[in-house]
Amino acid sequence: MLLGSVEAGGTKFVCAVGNEDYRIMEKTQFPTTDPATTIQKTIEFFQKFDDLAALSVASFGPIELKKNNPNYGYITDTPKSQWSHTDLIGPLKKALNVPVYFTTDVNGSAFGEYVTAQLFNEKISSLVYYTVGTGVGGGAVLNGKILQGFGHPEMGHTFVKRHPDDLDFAGICPFHKDCLEGLVSGPTFDARLGIAGKDVPHEHHVWDIMAYYVAQAAIQQTMILRPDNIVFGGGVISEDFLAKVRVHFKQLLNDYVTVPDLDKYITMPRVKENGSATLGNFALAYKVQSE
Amino acid sequence: MLLGSVEAGGTKFVCAVGNEDYRIMEKTQFPTTDPATTIQKTIEFFQKFDDLAALSVASFGPIELKKNNPNYGYITDTPKSQWSHTDLIGPLKKALNVPVYFTTDVNGSAFGEYVTAQLFNEKISSLVYYTVGTGVGGGAVLNGKILQGFGHPEMGHTFVKRHPDDLDFAGICPFHKDCLEGLVSGPTFDARLGIAGKDVPHEHHVWDIMAYYVAQAAIQQTMILRPDNIVFGGGVISEDFLAKVRVHFKQLLNDYVTVPDLDKYITMPRVKENGSATLGNFALAYKVQSE
Repeated sequence: MLLGSVEAGGTKFVCAVGNEDYRIMEKTQFPTTDPATTIQKTIEFFQKFDDLAALSVASFGPIELKKNNPNYGYITDTPKSQWSHTDLIGPLKKALNVPVYFTTDVNGSAFGEYVTAQLFNEKISSLVYYTVGTGVGGGAVLNGKILQGFGHPEMGHTFVKRHPDDLDFAGICPFHKDCLEGLVSGPTFDARLGIAGKDVPHEHHVWDIMAYYVAQAAIQQTMILRPDNIVFGGGVISEDFLAKVRVHFKQLLNDYVTVPDLDKYITMPRVKENGSATLGNFALAYKVQSE
Repeated sequence: MLLGSVEAGGTKFVCAVGNEDYRIMEKTQFPTTDPATTIQKTIEFFQKFDDLAALSVASFGPIELKKNNPNYGYITDTPKSQWSHTDLIGPLKKALNVPVYFTTDVNGSAFGEYVTAQLFNEKISSLVYYTVGTGVGGGAVLNGKILQGFGHPEMGHTFVKRHPDDLDFAGICPFHKDCLEGLVSGPTFDARLGIAGKDVPHEHHVWDIMAYYVAQAAIQQTMILRPDNIVFGGGVISEDFLAKVRVHFKQLLNDYVTVPDLDKYITMPRVKENGSATLGNFALAYKVQSE
């Protein structure tokens, strides 16, 4: 049996086919251009595999996930040019004629991390995955199920208290200015310092300011979901940076509630090279074909 | 069949017995003194009812809810004098010999609100309940289940961005200073203004400042859990106050995600006179006796 994974990102699409052991058999990627071309390329990749059993798509958003909504399977009101109100799942289902699971990019990653934790016999029953990159997003798996309510979470858009050395920065979120995304997404380096994040030395104080905010995101999850693990991925995150996050987290939490050992609680992704979503998609495709 | 409810508060215990329709048959309350006396009074109230089928206890905390923990059923490291590391559930189970459900006070209220919504045929599958009173706490019900992770939520202890007219107030949380509880719990009126909340006129600007913070709590829930309804109870809350909260919420959200109509999304408790927890307890006691 073959399982398909689509990571539908705003910049690129990554398509992969794997087996029941979630091992990648073939993989391709191409830039996200207009919807028709991009979806057609996706279809052509998967059409090569006769025994594709199911597909899972982890997409940039916002997306419609309520199955009783006529726009189920759509990317909805995204600011991304041409993609607003695009039916992503309909054409894939029609052309490939297999069951298709649909979720957000970060939900796919969260599920991949959760499944990997289970494979490694870790005692993880709930897990949050944040990406801190061009934007900030988060998804959660609670007792094996992806967290989903009135819509999908948008965990990057909560507010935090300001670092005393960062009071003058307005924040760059077009909707909320100084929400988490507006304070710690990758482009904030350029907005604060006039240089790209990759060129900011590790000892620069801005890293400490950003760690203070990311630690508050971890506090929010700790107080609301009480997960067993909070995973941070994305271009801004490194082991070095998470070490700073843990220091702030410990100070902010002030031993108010019990949490797992911080080195195991606030972590980099288990799956390397941004592979969490692909693995999550394989597991979700497996689930959807067995339902 | 009779069902028992204990609301174990830091100030008073409220004990009630109800029928399968969750109607209160008899109710009593007494001050929370030392554990032995208070627990004994609780036992004596319920011993009067021969056909008590089960009991549910919604307690102040922190409490231990993990059933495989040797301290399950305990109030753990509370600052409340004499109550630290008190076995609350053990003595009740032993004396009354019925199944006992144990949860937090706000979880009990959240469950009561959820059950009431179902009885009224509201389309509510997830709901958050905050109490804003002496302290701030929150619980959630997701698809009929109380949210519980590595421990129970402590939703009152997340951080928020400061109102520009409130930058000099340090906050009063003994653990976190300016977390939500440290900025909006009842005693903050006295800390900010030197007068009790009940004596602060409705037109005072401090209400607007507090509404700004409570709105951010609602934003956190909206971005993380995406619930169908956020209920606010407790001494600080009034319809007048929630009207202010909705105004700030709308501005802060800035239409970023879809939410239900705000008058139905951010609401006072359905069950009047602080009765949510009693009703929730009856429903939880019913559940635990049928398991």
